[in-house]
Amino acid sequence: MTELGVVRRRIERADRAAVDKLAAFGVATVHEAMGRVGLMQPYMRPIFPGAQVSGAAVTVLLHPGDNWMMHVAAEQIEPGDVVVAAISAECADGFFGDLLATSFKARGARALVIDAGVRDVRTLTEMRFPVWSKCVSAKGTVKATLGSVNISVVCAGALVKPGDAIVADDDGVVVVPAAWAERAVAAAVAREANEGEKRAKLASGVLGLDMYKMREPLAKAGLKYVD
Amino acid sequence: MTELGVVRRRIERADRAAVDKLAAFGVATVHEAMGRVGLMQPYMRPIFPGAQVSGAAVTVLLHPGDNWMMHVAAEQIEPGDVVVAAISAECADGFFGDLLATSFKARGARALVIDAGVRDVRTLTEMRFPVWSKCVSAKGTVKATLGSVNISVVCAGALVKPGDAIVADDDGVVVVPAAWAERAVAAAVAREANEGEKRAKLASGVLGLDMYKMREPLAKAGLKYVD
Amino acid sequence: MTELGVVRRRIERADRAAVDKLAAFGVATVHEAMGRVGLMQPYMRPIFPGAQVSGAAVTVLLHPGDNWMMHVAAEQIEPGDVVVAAISAECADGFFGDLLATSFKARGARALVIDAGVRDVRTLTEMRFPVWSKCVSAKGTVKATLGSVNISVVCAGALVKPGDAIVADDDGVVVVPAAWAERAVAAAVAREANEGEKRAKLASGVLGLDMYKMREPLAKAGLKYVD
Amino acid sequence: MTELGVVRRRIERADRAAVDKLAAFGVATVHEAMGRVGLMQPYMRPIFPGAQVSGAAVTVLLHPGDNWMMHVAAEQIEPGDVVVAAISAECADGFFGDLLATSFKARGARALVIDAGVRDVRTLTEMRFPVWSKCVSAKGTVKATLGSVNISVVCAGALVKPGDAIVADDDGVVVVPAAWAERAVAAAVAREANEGEKRAKLASGVLGLDMYKMREPLAKAGLKYVD
Amino acid sequence: MTELGVVRRRIERADRAAVDKLAAFGVATVHEAMGRVGLMQPYMRPIFPGAQVSGAAVTVLLHPGDNWMMHVAAEQIEPGDVVVAAISAECADGFFGDLLATSFKARGARALVIDAGVRDVRTLTEMRFPVWSKCVSAKGTVKATLGSVNISVVCAGALVKPGDAIVADDDGVVVVPAAWAERAVAAAVAREANEGEKRAKLASGVLGLDMYKMREPLAKAGLKYVD
Amino acid sequence: MTELGVVRRRIERADRAAVDKLAAFGVATVHEAMGRVGLMQPYMRPIFPGAQVSGAAVTVLLHPGDNWMMHVAAEQIEPGDVVVAAISAECADGFFGDLLATSFKARGARALVIDAGVRDVRTLTEMRFPVWSKCVSAKGTVKATLGSVNISVVCAGALVKPGDAIVADDDGVVVVPAAWAERAVAAAVAREANEGEKRAKLASGVLGLDMYKMREPLAKAGLKYVD
Repeated sequence: MTELGVVRRRIERADRAAVDKLAAFGVATVHEAMGRVGLMQPYMRPIFPGAQVSGAAVTVLLHPGDNWMMHVAAEQIEPGDVVVAAISAECADGFFGDLLATSFKARGARALVIDAGVRDVRTLTEMRFPVWSKCVSAKGTVKATLGSVNISVVCAGALVKPGDAIVADDDGVVVVPAAWAERAVAAAVAREANEGEKRAKLASGVLGLDMYKMREPLAKAGLKYVD
Repeated sequence: MTELGVVRRRIERADRAAVDKLAAFGVATVHEAMGRVGLMQPYMRPIFPGAQVSGAAVTVLLHPGDNWMMHVAAEQIEPGDVVVAAISAECADGFFGDLLATSFKARGARALVIDAGVRDVRTLTEMRFPVWSKCVSAKGTVKATLGSVNISVVCAGALVKPGDAIVADDDGVVVVPAAWAERAVAAAVAREANEGEKRAKLASGVLGLDMYKMREPLAKAGLKYVD
Repeated sequence: MTELGVVRRRIERADRAAVDKLAAFGVATVHEAMGRVGLMQPYMRPIFPGAQVSGAAVTVLLHPGDNWMMHVAAEQIEPGDVVVAAISAECADGFFGDLLATSFKARGARALVIDAGVRDVRTLTEMRFPVWSKCVSAKGTVKATLGSVNISVVCAGALVKPGDAIVADDDGVVVVPAAWAERAVAAAVAREANEGEKRAKLASGVLGLDMYKMREPLAKAGLKYVD
Repeated sequence: MTELGVVRRRIERADRAAVDKLAAFGVATVHEAMGRVGLMQPYMRPIFPGAQVSGAAVTVLLHPGDNWMMHVAAEQIEPGDVVVAAISAECADGFFGDLLATSFKARGARALVIDAGVRDVRTLTEMRFPVWSKCVSAKGTVKATLGSVNISVVCAGALVKPGDAIVADDDGVVVVPAAWAERAVAAAVAREANEGEKRAKLASGVLGLDMYKMREPLAKAGLKYVD
Repeated sequence: MTELGVVRRRIERADRAAVDKLAAFGVATVHEAMGRVGLMQPYMRPIFPGAQVSGAAVTVLLHPGDNWMMHVAAEQIEPGDVVVAAISAECADGFFGDLLATSFKARGARALVIDAGVRDVRTLTEMRFPVWSKCVSAKGTVKATLGSVNISVVCAGALVKPGDAIVADDDGVVVVPAAWAERAVAAAVAREANEGEKRAKLASGVLGLDMYKMREPLAKAGLKYVD
Repeated sequence: MTELGVVRRRIERADRAAVDKLAAFGVATVHEAMGRVGLMQPYMRPIFPGAQVSGAAVTVLLHPGDNWMMHVAAEQIEPGDVVVAAISAECADGFFGDLLATSFKARGARALVIDAGVRDVRTLTEMRFPVWSKCVSAKGTVKATLGSVNISVVCAGALVKPGDAIVADDDGVVVVPAAWAERAVAAAVAREANEGEKRAKLASGVLGLDMYKMREPLAKAGLKYVD
């Protein structure tokens, strides 16, 4: 009845050129440009600071304590992809370490996003293979139960479909539906242009109160100044 | 009935010279010197390591999902202040990013302490604008509801009155009531002097058991050594 | 009835040569080599990245808000030891700071593992004295209640007996029973040898599916590929 | 770009007869029958024990601190529905109390499932209007920002589409895609029949080891009995 | 320098008649009437359902693992008071059990609100002595360190001054500054009157959309209905 | 190297008469009588209030997502036992439901203590089979990986050896080493006798300050009364 035990080989990846452009804008800008949807929970943290990536999602659904499907997922990776791993129930095991990272990297993966634990983080940091995860744990896993690859998953509170654009940086991880990738770039470009000018004004000491013309609506809302 | 929708423009800031001296002692020493009160919860973490600041508090009370009052707070900042933001209910939104940081910095703020999320942390790190927060989140906010500026707030478990001295470093954040700032400096000076000598003794291999003359009280309390 | 108020002076430390070798393998490898037991909870995090240590455990049981026994423990440290501190109930106080670290270091301790808070983390980082802890907190403690030194304790979910080998790095902390230390080294050596070869293959693009001969068992388990 | 500010009036509800049958099986059985997918996080708890409901989902996406769309959702409720409320970011406000419950009940709603807080729980308990929520909080909300009604949402880690079947009891909340509702009933019926017989055997003292013929596979896997 | 080791005997209690009236309105109504301030964190839960109390606050500041000051607080209780206990750092010990409850009850206390653990909850339930706490824990405490009684404390995120009115029920705990108690009653009365009429309308099937005249502002904000 | 895949059939159970007496004292009294050791973490909660049991521990070590060994454990249960289940890593699955409960009950088990999730809680409540657990979750598990039965485990922060006495009630769960069971009864008897008298005094209005003669030590410690 469910999509367990299924590997979808052909997925519609978001437009590669658009996906590649998203990294530079960063998560906060893309999330705003999207209308504030698609953000993963803030407990998803990078294992080292400074990484900023985007890529098309290869998704994998794992079961607690079992990373068998990670190897199945590896084969579905194309250069430029980001693997997104969801677990069917909360689990803090370390499903991913340096061997899998070596394999993912060899396949062209840019990062892993996993709603569970990761290990060998020192080596992963040396390899500069970025991972966003719920926690770090040295606890390994077995290979006994089928999950699925390239089905829709919920990862850290966000729906991810195979091929969706993933953007991740020090602020977290955001998902852009594949069909929106190009519009997301356009919206982010517009937003950034707009922000540059604002930044200069604010740096010169102009207040947001004046720049955004907030004084009147604040007064209308009843704001009172007292001494 | 409440102080919502109020901005207090004139606040009594802790003695500036005293406040400025507090940073160098660090949070742990100041907190001890104060008699172990005023510490914020340990979930308050800096977005980058190594920052060590002190300043007078400009306080702001925000509502979940709404950062309108941050702009109102900006106008009340004087050089050397630290903005302390409390939220009226638990919320993990990112209320503060690089634009507001640019504005706060231009006004002379030294840091932000916020019992919620912050975003654009990579840029904030490059700007060296330190923030102590509950979490990092790219989730932006609306500007629709009045809160207040420069009222007493509870931030991460600590009472903060406008003008209180705030000290923050890698150990966390501590609040020193404005009227105590000078005594806190004196107490911290005494404490540090005392600690230097102890440190040298301990480094030479003298045991705390002997240096603090603990052997007798331990024996009296019933401590038993066995082989 | 209990072992409170007891200090055991003579403990059987794990074979020193074996203990010293364990650090290089790292927590994930040692934990695997052990059969996946003895790992502390993943909330135990290092105060700075990159430390990788092993040592024999000197254990201490503390009570919430009271670090008196830390000084008692200091006397029992031999060069190469790692102090493991458990608390009799959950508590986020900072039981350990730079003075105790100076003393522990002078006695030859390599690290502290504590299921509670630590403070003065900036100074500890400068001293390169590594601590794995549940949190960072500037909150100091009193010295009023007896605990014990060198009894069996449960620290962050793992049983630790005095003299057990402790291995800690960026992946967390693992406990190796003293009697197993040499076998753990042997097993880790075997495991590493094995991993080097695998790593090379994976780096060259060979899939884990093929290297581990997983295709047949996956098919048997019912895995289906669709387009 | 996003579906914010949208109310979908016509949704395809799961077959009503099938949905209505699901309550009696309970969450654990339905979840097993589904192949172990669709379960919300275990932090979702009922405000009183013993409620066991099923219904078609009317979904609503809210923003932190703002329950305006709850009133919009009320109009879309048909008798037998269950309202499922997701929040665009973590928030512990109490978005729902006895007034809204009165309205929902008058419209025929059977329950509310909300990934946030609820209030007036004593009155809701007296009304026997069941709510599954993340927490209880008296904190009210404003009505200022648009969300959406009857779009796909992620609630407590599970994807919910408008019209999906929701089953909730003391074990939690599970989502059955609308198209699967009838098969889910069939599978649950089969499972229950099967369980009745097993229960009788186990009650008579037969061991699962024998009933499920586990002894041989356990021995094969290497299980050893020692005295 | 701090107020540690101090017991204030004379405190200004909120007007007793007003305080006594607050219980009947419940936490959610009082909190709304207050303008949504003063609510403790939602992790504060009653040990049994159905209790609904109000009283004047006798405050006590404890240290982790030490409940000595509870006995000092007992003497300051007057009939109709509610004891509010804050801890100087996070701690899950059980600071309060049936013996202290017997004493508090004999003094006329109506309830305990404690930002830590409580024990003997079965007996407390039989005694019908309500406690709102962070957790339940059988872990007892020592009596070794001074705290204070009847100073301002922060309990579960809310500032409580001795004499403030405390209202607690199944929705949580709210603090009403002593000087506001009578206005809070008036505001709650007004609010309740207003709510009765609304409840009847909603029960008859009138929508909040119409009752609150929300259709126009929603349309103005851009809400769109689609089929 | 480890004790994985092992079932110990002969264990030394704590003296049955002593174990049976412990239930009546309750967890808080037994824990105090023991010298405040052996308590599980306070997150361990009963699925229904009012259960109060004691029994000898049959221990089981499970892996995340896998309850195979529960069936192996069932065979080792003797009437009057309490099963204690530890998981090798944090996991919120529901490892135990009504079928296993039927089997455990038929074997004479009095309760289950599990550091993970449980399901079918409504049925378990009707059966009056008490379970203390970390959470409730309908998520089932597979049967694929060996753990062990009747080895030493750490459950919710407490060391449990097979045969140890387990006491559980609304305050939580405490472990009494098998060899201490009779002394624990004696100590609890002494404690209770002592408490009865104290309770009567406190109920009559005598203050703990006087009954425990605390006034002098408090004054010596520096406590000051102010008006």
